[in-house]
Amino acid sequence: MIISTNKRLSNFKLLPIALSILPFTATANSNVVHDAEYYILEAQNGKVWEVEDKDLDAKLAELAEEYGTPPNIVHFMWDDQPMGAIGVPAIQQSRGYDTPNLNQMADEGMLFSRMYTEPSCTPTRAAALTGQHPIRNGMYRVGFPVEYHGISEESVTTANILSDAGYATGFFGKAHLGDIEESYMHNQGFDVAFAAIYNQVASIWNEQGESANATIGFKDSVLAPDPYHLDDTYMSDDIVLFYEGHKGQQAKEWCGVSLDCYNQFDQEAERRALDFIETNAAAKQPFYVAWWPQWVSFIPEQQKSSRQRGIVGDAYQNNLDPSAGALMDTLKKAGIEENTLVIAMADNGPMTHNPPAGLGMGEGLFRGGKGDFTEGGVRVTAQAWWPGMIEPGQTVGDIIHVTDLYTTFARLGNATENIPDDRVIDGIDQTSLLINGDTHGRRDYVHIYSGDKLGATVKKHYKMHWINTDPTAASGIGSTYYDLLNDPREQSPLLVNMVMHGNSFARMRERHEMMMEKYPNKKAGQGPAYTGMELLNPDTKEISEPLIFIE
Amino acid sequence: MIISTNKRLSNFKLLPIALSILPFTATANSNVVHDAEYYILEAQNGKVWEVEDKDLDAKLAELAEEYGTPPNIVHFMWDDQPMGAIGVPAIQQSRGYDTPNLNQMADEGMLFSRMYTEPSCTPTRAAALTGQHPIRNGMYRVGFPVEYHGISEESVTTANILSDAGYATGFFGKAHLGDIEESYMHNQGFDVAFAAIYNQVASIWNEQGESANATIGFKDSVLAPDPYHLDDTYMSDDIVLFYEGHKGQQAKEWCGVSLDCYNQFDQEAERRALDFIETNAAAKQPFYVAWWPQWVSFIPEQQKSSRQRGIVGDAYQNNLDPSAGALMDTLKKAGIEENTLVIAMADNGPMTHNPPAGLGMGEGLFRGGKGDFTEGGVRVTAQAWWPGMIEPGQTVGDIIHVTDLYTTFARLGNATENIPDDRVIDGIDQTSLLINGDTHGRRDYVHIYSGDKLGATVKKHYKMHWINTDPTAASGIGSTYYDLLNDPREQSPLLVNMVMHGNSFARMRERHEMMMEKYPNKKAGQGPAYTGMELLNPDTKEISEPLIFIE
Repeated sequence: MIISTNKRLSNFKLLPIALSILPFTATANSNVVHDAEYYILEAQNGKVWEVEDKDLDAKLAELAEEYGTPPNIVHFMWDDQPMGAIGVPAIQQSRGYDTPNLNQMADEGMLFSRMYTEPSCTPTRAAALTGQHPIRNGMYRVGFPVEYHGISEESVTTANILSDAGYATGFFGKAHLGDIEESYMHNQGFDVAFAAIYNQVASIWNEQGESANATIGFKDSVLAPDPYHLDDTYMSDDIVLFYEGHKGQQAKEWCGVSLDCYNQFDQEAERRALDFIETNAAAKQPFYVAWWPQWVSFIPEQQKSSRQRGIVGDAYQNNLDPSAGALMDTLKKAGIEENTLVIAMADNGPMTHNPPAGLGMGEGLFRGGKGDFTEGGVRVTAQAWWPGMIEPGQTVGDIIHVTDLYTTFARLGNATENIPDDRVIDGIDQTSLLINGDTHGRRDYVHIYSGDKLGATVKKHYKMHWINTDPTAASGIGSTYYDLLNDPREQSPLLVNMVMHGNSFARMRERHEMMMEKYPNKKAGQGPAYTGMELLNPDTKEISEPLIFIE
Repeated sequence: MIISTNKRLSNFKLLPIALSILPFTATANSNVVHDAEYYILEAQNGKVWEVEDKDLDAKLAELAEEYGTPPNIVHFMWDDQPMGAIGVPAIQQSRGYDTPNLNQMADEGMLFSRMYTEPSCTPTRAAALTGQHPIRNGMYRVGFPVEYHGISEESVTTANILSDAGYATGFFGKAHLGDIEESYMHNQGFDVAFAAIYNQVASIWNEQGESANATIGFKDSVLAPDPYHLDDTYMSDDIVLFYEGHKGQQAKEWCGVSLDCYNQFDQEAERRALDFIETNAAAKQPFYVAWWPQWVSFIPEQQKSSRQRGIVGDAYQNNLDPSAGALMDTLKKAGIEENTLVIAMADNGPMTHNPPAGLGMGEGLFRGGKGDFTEGGVRVTAQAWWPGMIEPGQTVGDIIHVTDLYTTFARLGNATENIPDDRVIDGIDQTSLLINGDTHGRRDYVHIYSGDKLGATVKKHYKMHWINTDPTAASGIGSTYYDLLNDPREQSPLLVNMVMHGNSFARMRERHEMMMEKYPNKKAGQGPAYTGMELLNPDTKEISEPLIFIE
């Protein structure tokens, strides 16, 4: 790593303490190119981490001996729920729903109070699979049809690195990572894929949706004729929602675009995910599963199951919580629950967080939701379950970021050497947090992007908004500064504290941007949509080529 | 009860369902005059409650047989903390403090997600001791020196009714219920009292406070001379903060007004409370203790103990949580933990809830704080602990109001017959909720007063703001209506739902006001301050008589 010279470090304007203890110690992750901030922490904590790592290696080796394989990994992720939505009965009682299975999982495992994601679906999913903030690979936009865009073939995903380490890899659920051939999940390292291309808005891309949601307006067949209409390409009916595929083979469109297909998709994904787990468990084959349910339909059931009667409360009770129960049952039945790490989490904050619209979605402790760089946008409900390895009943206060799953899964699967060293990996190995518990995290910071702009940076429990939306909150450097423990809703910027902390934040940002200059950001993949796929509707071919394409 | 005639009921505009199942069934509480709403519930649920009550009586009789006394009762109450502040590690991690003892108490007992209080100190404390909304007895104002005002000699407090039933009764901590003789706690039914007259502002009524808090401005000795000064009575130094007393005897001022006295008060209150418990336990004498710590000083310690570094986080860790631990230890050492109900709770929402002022105080899930009729003002952290009688690990969703402690303590102490029948008692017997758990509460409503105005009414998880602060939230009847499960921050009034629910709320209010006409509200006590007390400072006598008194 070029960073390990004094000259380079002085360019990075490191803190004096970091300069004084050079050279950097080597760690298990030494082949990975981290973001600058990590090296500041490693320089100060690397020796302690080295000792911890030896102990962790011994624990994992013991487990591998017992089961004959490295641990299985299940990443169970759904949409749009703030920290506290799961595992906190006082909050569930206040919101009117109950998730006994997920709460049991939290009670038996580790609840994260500071799991950060990207602020929306596509970016978080890309971050989970690449270990990078999506600014680095162009996946910072939320995908809608038709995109002609998606996760690039240059990506090296969790599925790639774990496949190369001998894992069976399966994707089941909502991918939301592009509609071009290279972006299909079985072209991104997964052995098998059963995937939704876009998001839950697909539940109202139909006649039923148009009649239930007067303001959507894209089903021309039921809308009044528009006498000012000039452009047929603005919105198309002939899209693909779902596909299935196997590594190295052509994809097949699944079912179609009807509401029935939408509603059957999650059940089918669950069936395939649990089958995949059972089959591999029986074969003593280690596996990695990304099971990302759609979980909600924007056309809710008439019969309500939650007191809340909102789509979220009902979706927890009808869809997601029973799936979590089935997952735990399947792992226990296969006798591998103590050799399987389950991470269950949401991908970003609540979408519609201004009631009454979006009944049932709403803020928790924090301000904002999906799309926002305030804590409400990026601080999600998340928990880890691994009986025997993770101490039950913990609520940890360490910062963890969704990209850390990439590096942590790699470590657990003996796949760290497969992580490419030609790019910055924002993820950090958090195995010690999982196994050693509270205060053993290796991250005290997180950068929060809003699209392709750096929206905010968190360090410790302090936060700088680089994008200042309050013209009255003068702070000397055009930014606003918050103490998250004392002002979790980020409503009262602190001017005096800013005087002392502002430059530390400015240096963090500078280091981050210098690293970005050294390893420039890449674009996402782009090209014709829906190629390499056996289509059900011949009309779809007509829109698979973009009308105009500017390189 | 005059309500039990059809004619009267039709005046009350009861719902058809209530009319059809008349006459009302009798319950264990039949001598108590309840508010109108209770009778609506009793008419529909009385038969079920009767069966439950028989079973509860049997359980309590069994316990009494084992211990030879009815259960002891400890009401441990502190200031200004919202629901979730205790017993919810995810929230504590997010606010930067930890309360291991109180959390253990919550884990081993019942956490209330809907404990409602009055919106500030004095009203809540009066409500707890009288079982009435303080509008009924004039105690709706927060007391500051000199008040010439306090809880009236006509009050019949929890201490009165439990004393008459054979309990030893002790008050230790912040009373905040008046500075006139009749309001002293040992003149309100307590055998012994060690009490603070006013509130935590007393921690800055001194030179240290004036220098630490530039905006307070009442210590003339350190302020610049005011050339416009005309009135010497506006603020006086010669006040009394603390007293001790025994039933039937003259009070004694304790210690004085210095910051040292303030800081020693809580320790002394704890010592006396635990002594009282030990002594009575040894004598097999049933007891009722109101232990209401001051818990915070507005001049915080220099050395911080909580990550939050705010007065609240530090006060939890340094003061309150160790006290809760000492309480549990004392009960266990005396072997009476299974014969003692402990209610631990805050008296209202966070005082300064707009950070950064009041570092450490802040909103939880709900909007607003002390003084507000939004949920943030009145929905507090609260829990019940009674090993063996209360099932551990519960988080209940039933509504309970601080006045319910009056009727519930009465029931447990065989003192229901001592409740006066010449006034409305807003409290409801919630023994079934405590012992039978979630969904066994007997209240689905609560009226929330803002001073002497009805601010809002809650029914089920719906809420009507009678005082509408949003001129753009037209609702047809000048009020605004919220769904608390879907909009816990009460930010988006619902107009369409109001059409259906509005009249149900209007009828509730009408019934409540008709009951108030029948049983008119009384005034608080008023008179000279600090009489009947052995004073330490002879100057105090000068201000003990109000300068003007209009009857």
